[in-house]
Amino acid sequence: MGDPAGIGPEIIAKAWAARDVHALAPFFAIGDARAIERVWHGPVVRIDTPDHAASAFADALPVMTVADAGEIVPGHPDVEGARCALQSLELAMGLTQAGAACALVTGPVSKSQLYSIGFHYPGQTEFVSDRCGIAHANTVMMLAGPTLRVVPITTHVPLDAVRGLLTVDLILAKARVTVRGLTRNFGIERPRLAFAGLNPHAGEGGALGMEEIDVMAPAIAILREEGIDAIGPLAADTMFHARARATYDAALCAYHDQALIPLKTLHFDEGVNMTLGLPIVRTSPDHGTAFAIAGTNSAEPGAMIAAIRMAAQAATRRRLCEPQ
Amino acid sequence: MGDPAGIGPEIIAKAWAARDVHALAPFFAIGDARAIERVWHGPVVRIDTPDHAASAFADALPVMTVADAGEIVPGHPDVEGARCALQSLELAMGLTQAGAACALVTGPVSKSQLYSIGFHYPGQTEFVSDRCGIAHANTVMMLAGPTLRVVPITTHVPLDAVRGLLTVDLILAKARVTVRGLTRNFGIERPRLAFAGLNPHAGEGGALGMEEIDVMAPAIAILREEGIDAIGPLAADTMFHARARATYDAALCAYHDQALIPLKTLHFDEGVNMTLGLPIVRTSPDHGTAFAIAGTNSAEPGAMIAAIRMAAQAATRRRLCEPQ
Repeated sequence: MGDPAGIGPEIIAKAWAARDVHALAPFFAIGDARAIERVWHGPVVRIDTPDHAASAFADALPVMTVADAGEIVPGHPDVEGARCALQSLELAMGLTQAGAACALVTGPVSKSQLYSIGFHYPGQTEFVSDRCGIAHANTVMMLAGPTLRVVPITTHVPLDAVRGLLTVDLILAKARVTVRGLTRNFGIERPRLAFAGLNPHAGEGGALGMEEIDVMAPAIAILREEGIDAIGPLAADTMFHARARATYDAALCAYHDQALIPLKTLHFDEGVNMTLGLPIVRTSPDHGTAFAIAGTNSAEPGAMIAAIRMAAQAATRRRLCEPQ
Repeated sequence: MGDPAGIGPEIIAKAWAARDVHALAPFFAIGDARAIERVWHGPVVRIDTPDHAASAFADALPVMTVADAGEIVPGHPDVEGARCALQSLELAMGLTQAGAACALVTGPVSKSQLYSIGFHYPGQTEFVSDRCGIAHANTVMMLAGPTLRVVPITTHVPLDAVRGLLTVDLILAKARVTVRGLTRNFGIERPRLAFAGLNPHAGEGGALGMEEIDVMAPAIAILREEGIDAIGPLAADTMFHARARATYDAALCAYHDQALIPLKTLHFDEGVNMTLGLPIVRTSPDHGTAFAIAGTNSAEPGAMIAAIRMAAQAATRRRLCEPQ
């Protein structure tokens, strides 16, 4: 459910209300059921075990209450809410690892609130990787919308730090995990990767930077030798229009904004964050808690619906659950 | 006409063919008329002075031949073509400065070919600024599509050089020229500027970089004191979706790809490059010579049409010509 004072509860409820339109597989929420009832007046059914979710799902939104979130005021996060969010995440993670749930979809959390109660991971992604026993370097954050998938090779670091982090080894690791992830989760047999150059015009033959020649091209050559369909480094500004997007399955970008700008420009209300490289399926709507609009019934559930759909499809493909 | 072996001649001819659909003001081409006849079978009329263009325009594409481009083979640029392109640019520039033409629209050129005949400017923009006697630092490259205008504060430099170039003075200079340019050319009385932060999430309060706090916010504060409507620095990834774009008239971005990625993702076939800060109006289609498709009749004229329309509208607004 993420932070109970954010838009998580509302978009989960709206996703349930749209379950038939979008043919959503049965899901259940974990958190404090009151957080949903505070912002939504549809049917809620409290469940104690995941088994009950499937049968209850048709008639009501199944919710497993893990903790009392205290006084819930939409838009006003507090430590009790953060504790509830963290316990929700712990339980959801455990149920998914145990196979009692097919996939994990995480709602938006407040990092500053989580930090205040001792959470020490940069975000939920790192928490999930750690619980799975996978080094974060061997996981990939992929953002996906209906017409574009992007992978930022470096993520939440100052722009000035990107150049130092962008090594042949890092590019190889991210590319290999991406290829396996696209095959496993999306059924793409031979994924096509397109790499964005770090510099304008992909360095213009060295005139606008050497990283393409010194680092990126050698890494791409190694990937090709391994039989991976990889092109680039390409000029980043001309690789995201519709005709260009049709030529690859994922764009691997050198830094955060290079990946996130095109994804959110095109698919702001329907972007899904999927972690690749894990033994479980984990997705998340690609937006924050939106405290500013929490409780106003104006949150768009599109990204949550897309996250639930993608998680269910990937889990089915990976045989982590029986098809519904 | 730009390089006679590029797609310039074809898109000019296609723009003329679409003159009624798009209500284009009369224009004439400068270059070698044979370059157009080589790729297009519509009516061409050779003119000697700009005066003849207006009366001839309804029935044929007026072309002023400035030089013999030699043997023109679409897709195969050579030095004779480059000389023709440079002389076309010189004449077009001179006629516009003299008021014999209302505005200058430059076609795509091959920089490497131009360099081989002694051209020493980074591009046509710098040539035009120089001929106008304006320091390049006091001009602005603005890229515009139907739903977005962007200004890269730094342009064709390695990504690693951006941080050192991004100073309060540069931001102020670019912002002031942009404000004046939007008012003069587009009739926007109080332009709204939105600044993109250099780092992911606009630095996240310093956690992901300090340039927003140390450089960008102080510059924006000064602009506000001057009465300029400026917001930011904003997280770059969330400022280019449709609802966000509606809140500003131009996005000022820290570096090339931050500006060009959203513009070309959204408006690849209709982007216009306009130089602000000049005594003349100068626009250009925001694409290259596309030698790979020259002569195949597959070039999209959308950006050239948009460049001609924008130039005519701006010249009319600035009273550089009588309304047609």
